[in-house]
Amino acid sequence: MSPRERLVVIGGDAAGMSAAAQARRRRSVDELEIVAFERGAYTSYSACGLPYLVSGQIDDVDALVARSPATHRAMGIDVRTGSQVVALDLDARTVTVRGADAEVVEPFDGLVIATGAVPARPPLPGIDADGVFGIQTLGDGIALRDAAQRASERRAVVVGGGYIGLEMAEAMHQRGFAVTVIDAGPQPLAGLDPDMGAIVARAMRSIGIELLTDTRVDAIETDATGRARGVVAAGEQHAADIVVLGIGVHPNVELARAAGVRIGDAGGVATDDHMATSAPGVWAAGDCVETRHRITGRSVFVPLGTHANKQGRVAGINATGGDAAFPGVIGTAVTKICAYEIGRTGLSEREARAAGFDFAAARIDSTARAGYYPGATPITIKVVAERGTGRLLGAQIIGQEGAVKRIDVLATAIWAGMTADELSQIDLGYAPPFAPVWDGALVAARKVAALV
Amino acid sequence: MSPRERLVVIGGDAAGMSAAAQARRRRSVDELEIVAFERGAYTSYSACGLPYLVSGQIDDVDALVARSPATHRAMGIDVRTGSQVVALDLDARTVTVRGADAEVVEPFDGLVIATGAVPARPPLPGIDADGVFGIQTLGDGIALRDAAQRASERRAVVVGGGYIGLEMAEAMHQRGFAVTVIDAGPQPLAGLDPDMGAIVARAMRSIGIELLTDTRVDAIETDATGRARGVVAAGEQHAADIVVLGIGVHPNVELARAAGVRIGDAGGVATDDHMATSAPGVWAAGDCVETRHRITGRSVFVPLGTHANKQGRVAGINATGGDAAFPGVIGTAVTKICAYEIGRTGLSEREARAAGFDFAAARIDSTARAGYYPGATPITIKVVAERGTGRLLGAQIIGQEGAVKRIDVLATAIWAGMTADELSQIDLGYAPPFAPVWDGALVAARKVAALV
Repeated sequence: MSPRERLVVIGGDAAGMSAAAQARRRRSVDELEIVAFERGAYTSYSACGLPYLVSGQIDDVDALVARSPATHRAMGIDVRTGSQVVALDLDARTVTVRGADAEVVEPFDGLVIATGAVPARPPLPGIDADGVFGIQTLGDGIALRDAAQRASERRAVVVGGGYIGLEMAEAMHQRGFAVTVIDAGPQPLAGLDPDMGAIVARAMRSIGIELLTDTRVDAIETDATGRARGVVAAGEQHAADIVVLGIGVHPNVELARAAGVRIGDAGGVATDDHMATSAPGVWAAGDCVETRHRITGRSVFVPLGTHANKQGRVAGINATGGDAAFPGVIGTAVTKICAYEIGRTGLSEREARAAGFDFAAARIDSTARAGYYPGATPITIKVVAERGTGRLLGAQIIGQEGAVKRIDVLATAIWAGMTADELSQIDLGYAPPFAPVWDGALVAARKVAALV
Repeated sequence: MSPRERLVVIGGDAAGMSAAAQARRRRSVDELEIVAFERGAYTSYSACGLPYLVSGQIDDVDALVARSPATHRAMGIDVRTGSQVVALDLDARTVTVRGADAEVVEPFDGLVIATGAVPARPPLPGIDADGVFGIQTLGDGIALRDAAQRASERRAVVVGGGYIGLEMAEAMHQRGFAVTVIDAGPQPLAGLDPDMGAIVARAMRSIGIELLTDTRVDAIETDATGRARGVVAAGEQHAADIVVLGIGVHPNVELARAAGVRIGDAGGVATDDHMATSAPGVWAAGDCVETRHRITGRSVFVPLGTHANKQGRVAGINATGGDAAFPGVIGTAVTKICAYEIGRTGLSEREARAAGFDFAAARIDSTARAGYYPGATPITIKVVAERGTGRLLGAQIIGQEGAVKRIDVLATAIWAGMTADELSQIDLGYAPPFAPVWDGALVAARKVAALV
């Protein structure tokens, strides 16, 4: 090892730069050189914020950038933007970096892989036409926003009814577009059970969004200039001057795979709970890794900013001789579409079944305030618990105006290994502006406790 | 025992009627007669909703009544309103009930005491003048609302800066009154630590509410007709045509005490976790009882609708041969004053010190949404944890617009016995409209984890 070691980070997203920042905090510039290679022009931006850039709720692109390359450089992190790592040699301990002009080979002692995810792009006719947008990078978001501002027909088709699909549908709806969401499955948000998915479908339609389920997109139609002018799905034409692809992302693991780093069952870079990969001195974090689901014990791919930040922090600590662990996930996710908020945590009935659990589920209707208090909007809560033990396995919530963060109570209870009966007793906050005297979470827990 | 047993409930509040309803659910009318004696005219009303009746946010008095006497009667519960129980004879197993015309002696086999609480009424000159209002019963709320509608000066003094004091200050402020809150202590909401109390004080003043701390009320001033026209406090006159007493309540235990039922250290009827009193066949529930604080193990008096309902349910189950337990409280409480929301759970620093814990505390500033998302209002979170074990002891939150129910995550973690480090890792819901990528609860937990 050289007297001054060198930590290389591949990828300037939140995971990579969290790792770099944490490493910098723990090691002086004299001890450790830190170089981060980012393909694009931006670092540490919130990909989760892109829908709100597109909708116009956020004007300033810089607002999505937690720390710019210049900020990182001022912290002593040598960020090199426009620098794509195209090869990784674990024996030579080098990366090959393609810049604007040339490829250079750069050495490393320690390495953090944070190559993120790539949006799924099905091989459809017309998929690469102008007017078809994936949403993964800040550049994607800016391009879509600008196109939306210019669009004359103001008709959008969103392909995919998952989280990003719904958020993009909201964004285009708020832009004043007529929006059609097309999903190949029977409901939006496949992470919800059908009964809860049906509520989301109703909510979307009540907003004026056209929702087509069990419908496959056959092709993107283009005009004479090669611009998208619509989508053909199940044989029907849907006019659109903007087509947004919201069909999910894959972990970007090609570089790691080619170098011989182990890829796991869920398709992401495999790591232990210290974010160490199969290669000595190589850590990985963020949307390129898979992680452990704490309830099933299985590997899952959950690309989400909150995990990316935590994992990056852990990788940065361990890459500098520290000892930190990422404890895995329980699949908590929240989103909204206009006034409707949707959250889930743990296992749905479908997931519990697939994981081999014997379980019961209960669904209740409650309100976000005391029933008599003005603005007591409805909340529907579903809870899944294991038969025999009574252990909480999962929960789903649909509500309005701020209601969805109540999923965190259920996430915390599930994380703690509580039973449904234990949850039903907790001393939660009560006052009429905030909850009925029997909080919905307690009622749902009591209902499922009686079944297990 | 007679072939048909008789369960008597003293008090028609939420606790008493929850007990009656639960007993009715478990025993047929042929098996068990259930008689509930209520001094006033209403049953099962939400005392917590009174401030919103006074403010005018709730128009309809009936909206606060979960179940009317007629509804209870239709369920097979013999509710007798206008019936005050004035004596209890545990040997004869009778209660003496004073009605409109006469006193009658009524027998019971089982008994549930749900006599509620009585507002503190300090022996000040003028305390009984017209225009001075306590807030405990639905009748109190109606009287104050009607007086507020008639008042010409529209100046209110609220005596006491606790939960009810703040809620009444909000109500009078929303009615368009100039409001002064006078508290004998150094801050509003004594359940918060001074640093958090100071934030509440600033918030109140920013709304335009005058707040006087460390100030004792000497007298209520009255005019020639005997009506209140102001308050004298620390030698200064504060004009008011409405004076609201918000200085807390005492458990109403005189009947129980006189009958020889054991009263506990916190001044409430003492019960075990089955809500059984020291007298065989006699249960108690609601604002007249004291309960166990799960963290300190000590007896506490926490009059709150959510506990009253749970305790009533437990009493009703056990009074009919069932087996249910009330697990105690951790002191969770939430309130709001105009746009500001305040919550607490577990132990404050002050309470942790009094209970003999060695602890550390950390306070952080976060936002209710991603910082870049419109409407990302501030949230301040304070967490207290035990040194050595790292166990979470308590938390306090101040925020805006729906933020305060996030205290429930901390309540759930504390209830589960989690450490600060464990809490800092939980997979909480993340999306920009709902939280920063590092949720404030996680940040606060991590900060305090580093100190313990």
